Amino acid sequence: MLSEFSLIDRFFARRAAARPSDAAAGTLGIGDDCALLAPRAGEMLAISTDMLVEGRHFFADVDPEALGHKALAVNLSDLAAMGAQPQAFTLAFSLPKAEEAWLAAFSEGLFALAERYGCELIGGDTTGGPLNLCITVFGSVPPQAALRRDAAQPGDDIWISGTLGDARAGLGVQRGEWTADASDTATFRRALERPEPRVALGLALRGIAHAALDLSDGLAGDLLHILERSKLRATVDVDDVPRSAALRRLAPEIQRRCTLAGGDDYELCFTAPVAARAEVEKAGHEVGIQLTRIGTISALETAADRPAIGWRDASGAPLSLTLQGFDHFHAD
Amino acid sequence: MLSEFSLIDRFFARRAAARPSDAAAGTLGIGDDCALLAPRAGEMLAISTDMLVEGRHFFADVDPEALGHKALAVNLSDLAAMGAQPQAFTLAFSLPKAEEAWLAAFSEGLFALAERYGCELIGGDTTGGPLNLCITVFGSVPPQAALRRDAAQPGDDIWISGTLGDARAGLGVQRGEWTADASDTATFRRALERPEPRVALGLALRGIAHAALDLSDGLAGDLLHILERSKLRATVDVDDVPRSAALRRLAPEIQRRCTLAGGDDYELCFTAPVAARAEVEKAGHEVGIQLTRIGTISALETAADRPAIGWRDASGAPLSLTLQGFDHFHAD
Repeated sequence: MLSEFSLIDRFFARRAAARPSDAAAGTLGIGDDCALLAPRAGEMLAISTDMLVEGRHFFADVDPEALGHKALAVNLSDLAAMGAQPQAFTLAFSLPKAEEAWLAAFSEGLFALAERYGCELIGGDTTGGPLNLCITVFGSVPPQAALRRDAAQPGDDIWISGTLGDARAGLGVQRGEWTADASDTATFRRALERPEPRVALGLALRGIAHAALDLSDGLAGDLLHILERSKLRATVDVDDVPRSAALRRLAPEIQRRCTLAGGDDYELCFTAPVAARAEVEKAGHEVGIQLTRIGTISALETAADRPAIGWRDASGAPLSLTLQGFDHFHAD
Repeated sequence: MLSEFSLIDRFFARRAAARPSDAAAGTLGIGDDCALLAPRAGEMLAISTDMLVEGRHFFADVDPEALGHKALAVNLSDLAAMGAQPQAFTLAFSLPKAEEAWLAAFSEGLFALAERYGCELIGGDTTGGPLNLCITVFGSVPPQAALRRDAAQPGDDIWISGTLGDARAGLGVQRGEWTADASDTATFRRALERPEPRVALGLALRGIAHAALDLSDGLAGDLLHILERSKLRATVDVDDVPRSAALRRLAPEIQRRCTLAGGDDYELCFTAPVAARAEVEKAGHEVGIQLTRIGTISALETAADRPAIGWRDASGAPLSLTLQGFDHFHAD
């Protein structure tokens, strides 16, 4: 086992070492007991950790290059949701055995995304065991500019980046829950396997958005996190939730299920004051990402009132939805 | 599964929230997309990550309270080896099922150690899957005071804290490789299950020690890391390597195997100039930890010379040792 895992260490350490480390600004990277890292002057480190387990977050036959991409993408998405600039990450993983071709493809997907966002591998751990990936990611953000979940205000618009539901639609096709033609299937699969973290958008929304998070568990559950932390309510126009042309070709009830409770979207959901609409749209234009208003934040009306989402149809009439929370690939 | 894992989240989040967070100094802890953390003014964050897997790093029937202690202890040990002051950690883990008694004991061991070192849980992730624990730990250190692996100098003394080999002796008893009486068995088991990170010693050695690391994989392999990073050689007096009275009751060849290649010791191995001997001993006194000189660092003599350890017996004669590297519980 030793030689196998030395191989892994060298494989990842070599690629990591291709970037300048131990720079004046900088980091003491792989090879010591700890890495050293500092946020930018006057800023703080935004830190998030995610663990991905085979059979729960991905299938055993997943394309390893796509897995490398997604393992880091879901972490960068958390930085995007805080308006943080990616700096570095650590990677710990357990593997049943060290297959060079698998590791080469996995690390290619991982480092291609890392290099695109200037995010350096600064440390890690490898061990034998059932396949498990744990990434911890570090970004830099001025604390007063961080996009927090508890900062929504009554009257705020609720915005969504990109489109929702394609990843859940892709999972449904893989599971045989519904079918789609080859082109739409490819669209869905790409959304499921290769989410793009909205890092540039998160940075552009500093000073504009009030609250933000990334949609990993489905709009219904995730928006509720903002409401609970901010002690507010929301009204969402269900038919305004943006979806792809491919998703529009599935049945309306599947569209609703995928967009509202799908998960694995990794788009940003954020709130911003009505007065900031032009600024929000300008930020979207600058980063080339479609932004859509889907509803409004309001105050709790009585002491007994609880944070909740009111759903409306296209006519403005209330909809009673029974959404299965976390109805997506990873059940927790 | 949802309710089970919500229970876990609440369990850990509640204990984490018992400490003040989001303070002026501070951190935005559990409940947002990221935690926010900054090192002390003028310092950097020292960061280390370790993954522990059932059957490899611990037995399935491990005392969960001891496991909680050890999972954090091995990470704090990496901070100690850098001379860093613990600040915070993240915990990601996968569990086959959520048993409340197991989680209560695990979190008790984890938080008891965390609180003793003022190290706050600031984020995490829980999921279903084979038992796997991934902790990432954060400390603060002035970059010029960090105890690096590449900073040894020719002529330096080599020092060891505490005693080596008890953890490996305990594993041998568990495996039936050798036997010991009940009292010695308890001593060995405690060393294996409840290592104490040498945080106070690491802090006391700032500005005194040149190079340092913590002994997790056995002296022979770990000291070589310092030599390779510093491009130097070492001579070690094998019989000077400190060991407990319990270990001295095992056969001499077992003592040697456990002290030199045992692993799981989590003592510090460091180098310091001869002129600093009195300061080193004073630092050891102050923190109440026995420190022992076991050898000397020397320069490579020719261009073809490689970093290596020369072992000597009590008479000063060279010993040819065939040490099985990483001859301990986790084989990688």
